[in-house]
Amino acid sequence: MYRFKNDYSEGAHPLIMEELLMTNRYQTVGYGEDEYTQKACELIKAHIECEEAEVHLLVGGTQTNLTALGAFLRPHEAVIAVHSGHICVHETGAIEATGHKVISVDGVHGKLTPQKIQQALNEHGDYHMVKPRMAYISNTTEVGTTYSLAELVELSEICKANDLLLFMDGARLGSALTAFNNDMRMADIAKYTDAFYIGGTKNGALFGEALVITNPELQKDFKYLIKQRGALLAKGRLLGIQFKILFEDDLFYKLALHANQTAQTLQIGLKDMGYNMLVESNSNQIFVYMSDEVIDKLKQQFDFEVWTPAGDKPAVIRLVTSWATEPHEVEKFLVTAKELINMN
Amino acid sequence: MYRFKNDYSEGAHPLIMEELLMTNRYQTVGYGEDEYTQKACELIKAHIECEEAEVHLLVGGTQTNLTALGAFLRPHEAVIAVHSGHICVHETGAIEATGHKVISVDGVHGKLTPQKIQQALNEHGDYHMVKPRMAYISNTTEVGTTYSLAELVELSEICKANDLLLFMDGARLGSALTAFNNDMRMADIAKYTDAFYIGGTKNGALFGEALVITNPELQKDFKYLIKQRGALLAKGRLLGIQFKILFEDDLFYKLALHANQTAQTLQIGLKDMGYNMLVESNSNQIFVYMSDEVIDKLKQQFDFEVWTPAGDKPAVIRLVTSWATEPHEVEKFLVTAKELINMN
Amino acid sequence: MYRFKNDYSEGAHPLIMEELLMTNRYQTVGYGEDEYTQKACELIKAHIECEEAEVHLLVGGTQTNLTALGAFLRPHEAVIAVHSGHICVHETGAIEATGHKVISVDGVHGKLTPQKIQQALNEHGDYHMVKPRMAYISNTTEVGTTYSLAELVELSEICKANDLLLFMDGARLGSALTAFNNDMRMADIAKYTDAFYIGGTKNGALFGEALVITNPELQKDFKYLIKQRGALLAKGRLLGIQFKILFEDDLFYKLALHANQTAQTLQIGLKDMGYNMLVESNSNQIFVYMSDEVIDKLKQQFDFEVWTPAGDKPAVIRLVTSWATEPHEVEKFLVTAKELINMN
Amino acid sequence: MYRFKNDYSEGAHPLIMEELLMTNRYQTVGYGEDEYTQKACELIKAHIECEEAEVHLLVGGTQTNLTALGAFLRPHEAVIAVHSGHICVHETGAIEATGHKVISVDGVHGKLTPQKIQQALNEHGDYHMVKPRMAYISNTTEVGTTYSLAELVELSEICKANDLLLFMDGARLGSALTAFNNDMRMADIAKYTDAFYIGGTKNGALFGEALVITNPELQKDFKYLIKQRGALLAKGRLLGIQFKILFEDDLFYKLALHANQTAQTLQIGLKDMGYNMLVESNSNQIFVYMSDEVIDKLKQQFDFEVWTPAGDKPAVIRLVTSWATEPHEVEKFLVTAKELINMN
Repeated sequence: MYRFKNDYSEGAHPLIMEELLMTNRYQTVGYGEDEYTQKACELIKAHIECEEAEVHLLVGGTQTNLTALGAFLRPHEAVIAVHSGHICVHETGAIEATGHKVISVDGVHGKLTPQKIQQALNEHGDYHMVKPRMAYISNTTEVGTTYSLAELVELSEICKANDLLLFMDGARLGSALTAFNNDMRMADIAKYTDAFYIGGTKNGALFGEALVITNPELQKDFKYLIKQRGALLAKGRLLGIQFKILFEDDLFYKLALHANQTAQTLQIGLKDMGYNMLVESNSNQIFVYMSDEVIDKLKQQFDFEVWTPAGDKPAVIRLVTSWATEPHEVEKFLVTAKELINMN
Repeated sequence: MYRFKNDYSEGAHPLIMEELLMTNRYQTVGYGEDEYTQKACELIKAHIECEEAEVHLLVGGTQTNLTALGAFLRPHEAVIAVHSGHICVHETGAIEATGHKVISVDGVHGKLTPQKIQQALNEHGDYHMVKPRMAYISNTTEVGTTYSLAELVELSEICKANDLLLFMDGARLGSALTAFNNDMRMADIAKYTDAFYIGGTKNGALFGEALVITNPELQKDFKYLIKQRGALLAKGRLLGIQFKILFEDDLFYKLALHANQTAQTLQIGLKDMGYNMLVESNSNQIFVYMSDEVIDKLKQQFDFEVWTPAGDKPAVIRLVTSWATEPHEVEKFLVTAKELINMN
Repeated sequence: MYRFKNDYSEGAHPLIMEELLMTNRYQTVGYGEDEYTQKACELIKAHIECEEAEVHLLVGGTQTNLTALGAFLRPHEAVIAVHSGHICVHETGAIEATGHKVISVDGVHGKLTPQKIQQALNEHGDYHMVKPRMAYISNTTEVGTTYSLAELVELSEICKANDLLLFMDGARLGSALTAFNNDMRMADIAKYTDAFYIGGTKNGALFGEALVITNPELQKDFKYLIKQRGALLAKGRLLGIQFKILFEDDLFYKLALHANQTAQTLQIGLKDMGYNMLVESNSNQIFVYMSDEVIDKLKQQFDFEVWTPAGDKPAVIRLVTSWATEPHEVEKFLVTAKELINMN
Repeated sequence: MYRFKNDYSEGAHPLIMEELLMTNRYQTVGYGEDEYTQKACELIKAHIECEEAEVHLLVGGTQTNLTALGAFLRPHEAVIAVHSGHICVHETGAIEATGHKVISVDGVHGKLTPQKIQQALNEHGDYHMVKPRMAYISNTTEVGTTYSLAELVELSEICKANDLLLFMDGARLGSALTAFNNDMRMADIAKYTDAFYIGGTKNGALFGEALVITNPELQKDFKYLIKQRGALLAKGRLLGIQFKILFEDDLFYKLALHANQTAQTLQIGLKDMGYNMLVESNSNQIFVYMSDEVIDKLKQQFDFEVWTPAGDKPAVIRLVTSWATEPHEVEKFLVTAKELINMN
């Protein structure tokens, strides 16, 4: 049974495993004060062309979101996000558990727009309501779409004009930046956001998210917050080693590109056969309308998520690829789907 | 420069690294629902002779403390701990950040006693004060001492009599259970506490703490809390694999025993030379009075923590050993200390 | 300038002021353990025909909501409410500040329905999402509508079937229970909810909300929570005295009835002239479509809130009456509105 | 049975009741935006000679403490207070419930000293521990002592030197400023603290504390926080009216002086008879050693609190006077105590 269920089905890329093994008996200090972590952070700061940034390596995405937002916001301040945003629904109220409301607005293909930000601002005008203070976006979004540079700049402008922070959840940032139509560099993100993170978990690491804080006002005492949220890894070197490898020789981008390419092979192949897509994805997640019969048959050989059960419309399945996706399994999936097309 | 600074200076035990490598390309579901995690939890439940227990694998100690205590306590309920308890001072207010007061009492050699619990109960009698609802103990304690079975039973009794939960922080549980004078089995802990955890980070794993919840009333919905606190590892298998290896062939105990034995070699050696100990440790941390001159000299070859700076009394240093401690470095430390004894 | 702006523009009903004055120099114990509070709670328990209930007197509505919900819910549990619900938008994130997500759903004329509860349940199925644990309704709603007994029973049934608590915000409960088409008794509310409160602030008291907890599982230690949230009034007798007076001789209902009747006089009068209503209100708030010209003119003599500014449709104003509303000011408003009808 | 149990046994001073009655039917806007509140705040700002201050009127002391500290501190920041400080023990963990640790240190006669602040700073040196960010003092203290101006200045200096905020809980500020040996003006407090509050509840009001924020960095958005904590009174005018009366014609000081004088009459009288004091009080609370026999007899006529039960030493009782204390009851207490002196 091959899995297209998510991008964290396997361990880590072999180069990472090798480095973990090679450094295994070296002694280092704990808590991310080791040389590997230092090196990784330097690589990232050079890569984003922002030496004033602070980089912190954390273990997971929800952890990074809650630690960052909990640190950046005062108690009455709220974050604006689209309904499908990860913090809105899929983090068991982690942001609310730090005391903050998530103001949820409609997205456009999973994306936040200046209009929606303006609407949230209009609806929150006095002290009887929370004060919007941050806009949260994910790139890629939770439905596989990506922001263009122009969209990012526009969001940045409305945020600056309204004293809002702009935060990018980059759990799948590698996939976003290697999408075929992407026109954004990581340095652009550093320039136009106040903070963002670079996802390792879903792009070849065992685990790890590199949080980049470019706004100097948000940097103060951040390590206290990491510790307080239980997010400070004793053997912090494990994060340092992984991100060092990811940011040497462009491994981060190579892995993401493989994920995108295998997903595109699936999407193009399925479309050619006549399957319809929920959205046109340019990243490593694709969303396909399928009849329950086809789904049942495919499930005998493959594992994947039924994104939306059948209702007025047919069901939608989600196929996710990763750095580790085997091309011959992609091929096999397409062959099988082709055999089933008449049942769709 | 060899480090006796802590028990998380290296990576993981080779058997763990080997298994991580061997399973690296297997595909599993995420979030700890994989077969490795299931196997690890079964091994632990069998080992503690408590099939009704729930076992959850988390990444770190502070994370486990805050997730568990935040889940088990209602907002007005507080936890009693000794001043030196990890949750009291060394977690950046993680427990308070979940809304709960830590009632801090004097310890006896780092240990909580029924008398101190009774005192806290006496001092918190009505709704103007928090309600004591849990006693928190660490084994080994933060100063390297251990609880006897009789002490544990006594604590359990006063807790039960006063509707208090008993929680054991086992970040160094391996060391406690292999201390030369230990008379407790892990099954005893399962029997006499409501929840406890088994530390992997400080005993040979890359990271990981196995939280055991034996009190069925505390088990409900616990996975929601793990997710909410950002403590749910996407590739949960990493925890499963590590604890599976630790609980096969008694590796967990073998590693801890090595740590204890090297620490005892240090303690006995130093005492024989005439150095004095702050406490008589029977675990993997020892605390030695040393003059600043001796410390300076030793620091040229070894890294360790100055636990208490010199004041009315000489300084105290802490030496920590682990599964990875090299016997010849222990030897070298003793030789050097002997050369310096006249400066003490 | 006469105000139809809200139902808390004046002080308290004269009978309440009189009793406060008369008892002013009596000495009592603090914190609601006095005889007046005891008497008030007894009156309320008798009135709702539920001796097992616990009654707690708090100062304000937001305070009551956050104290109750924060006490009743575990950290991962969430409350379902309609968008217009007071806890959703108009409490500055008070519920989120206690750590809980408010799951916001569309209302039907401001009311929550079983269908919407079911939808929220369907969308929250596993531990990656918060767990719906409570349904929150307001009666009257924030747009002046009321629940029928049949609706309440239906809500109660779906809640019971899904292990949800049912909580009623009764900031304007007096108005709801004296609405001309009301078919519910306060005893019904006690029977079909787990907790609710009886608003004093908006019905003739200086301040005060009587929280009634009928579900015995929610009663434990509640006074601790009141204190912790800063909601325990030192001179608790002030609350006791006021609710005692309100629940003697049906004053609570008489005051609410006056508010409703003056509002109905306004609504019927305006409709007769040709003004249109946003919703058909049967309580003490009415919502009238008006042109900006009419609003400007009326504002020269009266203060009221512009509920929705003019857009595609004309603006909507809100007129609120209370126990203190002067009939001759109602008359004057109608006369003025009639003069302006051609500008509408 | 006459009560010396606390300073909130009665209602309000007649002048306050009169004004509440006189203004009862006036219509005002809510939430403290009315003219009475504005007037009260202006009177206070003039009185403290600090026009840049912000004044907010809240209902109670615990509420004020939690709202202010929760607003002023970032999540990892902690407040230093003496063990007997109100926030340490007597607020049911209200500060912790907002997420902050209270660092508890020994007091000297109930007072915080620069030495104790320095000790707390020394013990909290890195990101594994909370960051001390505020010093909390009460004046009068919880054991009836007061700070001198020199002590206040000294505390202010160490706070400024270490980037700590200085906060004064003034629940009994009137009593402090009218103590016979007091050398401080309220304007001094405004000058040397970052925020403080002026207690009304214990000095003649029905309820009410006036929080003064002099540090402009702490003023931003404070009203949001008041609302979020459920501390925004709908009929905010009630607070405005009361503080307006208290700060007209020095009523605030006259009431406090009466309380102090009656307490001193008790203290001097009891000492003259041979009773011993726990501390030498100069305010409205006195603490007297008494045998259980004497206590039993006095309890037949008077209500008061047994502060410390008899142990190695005799019991200590607390007698509290207020603006409302009747001189003839003081006389009667002294006469009775004199008759019982042989039983002591």
